[in-house]
Amino acid sequence: MNLPFKIRSLRRGDRLPLTALLKAQAHFRPAEVQIALELIDLALNQTGEEDYLIRCAESGRGEIVGYACYGKAPLTDAVYDLYWIVVHPDYWSRGPGSALLLQVENEVERLKARLLLIETSSLSSYARPRSFYLKHGYRELARIPDYYAVGDHKLIFGKAL
Amino acid sequence: MNLPFKIRSLRRGDRLPLTALLKAQAHFRPAEVQIALELIDLALNQTGEEDYLIRCAESGRGEIVGYACYGKAPLTDAVYDLYWIVVHPDYWSRGPGSALLLQVENEVERLKARLLLIETSSLSSYARPRSFYLKHGYRELARIPDYYAVGDHKLIFGKAL
Repeated sequence: MNLPFKIRSLRRGDRLPLTALLKAQAHFRPAEVQIALELIDLALNQTGEEDYLIRCAESGRGEIVGYACYGKAPLTDAVYDLYWIVVHPDYWSRGPGSALLLQVENEVERLKARLLLIETSSLSSYARPRSFYLKHGYRELARIPDYYAVGDHKLIFGKAL
Repeated sequence: MNLPFKIRSLRRGDRLPLTALLKAQAHFRPAEVQIALELIDLALNQTGEEDYLIRCAESGRGEIVGYACYGKAPLTDAVYDLYWIVVHPDYWSRGPGSALLLQVENEVERLKARLLLIETSSLSSYARPRSFYLKHGYRELARIPDYYAVGDHKLIFGKAL
């Protein structure tokens, strides 16, 4: 059963709980956690044009149980990248991922986006995010073989909006 | 006939001639010039880890006639992106592009790169860079249809090193 989650913008005090959330992702590589944190810091400190937008999913008890980071793809007219969508393992399949994805889709549609792209890995440890994207209407548009490492391909999923 | 060109690292005083070089690229979109300049500024100001590396091609008269910007692809074990290779139109087919590409390939090979990637557009105005990459052994590994705009696909070329 899906619980209700409040989706809200990023606040300065969120850095610590978001760090904990990232570290709870057993399938994430250390470099992935580091880059995700860099994007959080960029989102917290950017002024003017917002290259990285972050939305947090909050439980009824006010805890952050997931977040999404997205932004306009440079050089495109109206394509957006969903850089990260992260949910605490205790809340997998309980709704925050879908709530975050729906919120991001709504927001980029308001910005006249044509296409939302998500990159992921071909490894079996990424089967859950892949099936999550497929369930929400994303399709594999392209793949770069042996991208992350030999045998670990980059898959580029997309959904027309 | 190919002229001899000196390939050297970026210096602070290069920003102005590089800006002029970018503005001389009639096929570049304004956003492309802006992002290329952002990467030049990042390369000039980065301390510690170097995400963006720039090499300049200098003519016998000490003028910058081209440059290349490359860096390690985040989250990959040993893949590099060639973000930009720009040559002044007066010097097209006269050698600086090939000299720059060869230099970048040599440098990333020393860094144990497996693969060098270059993204480009499917538009007819990009036929020259596409044939330049093909001539140098790059192959289309993937494409994202309607990426930059409807009808303007992103092509991802790569060469195993």
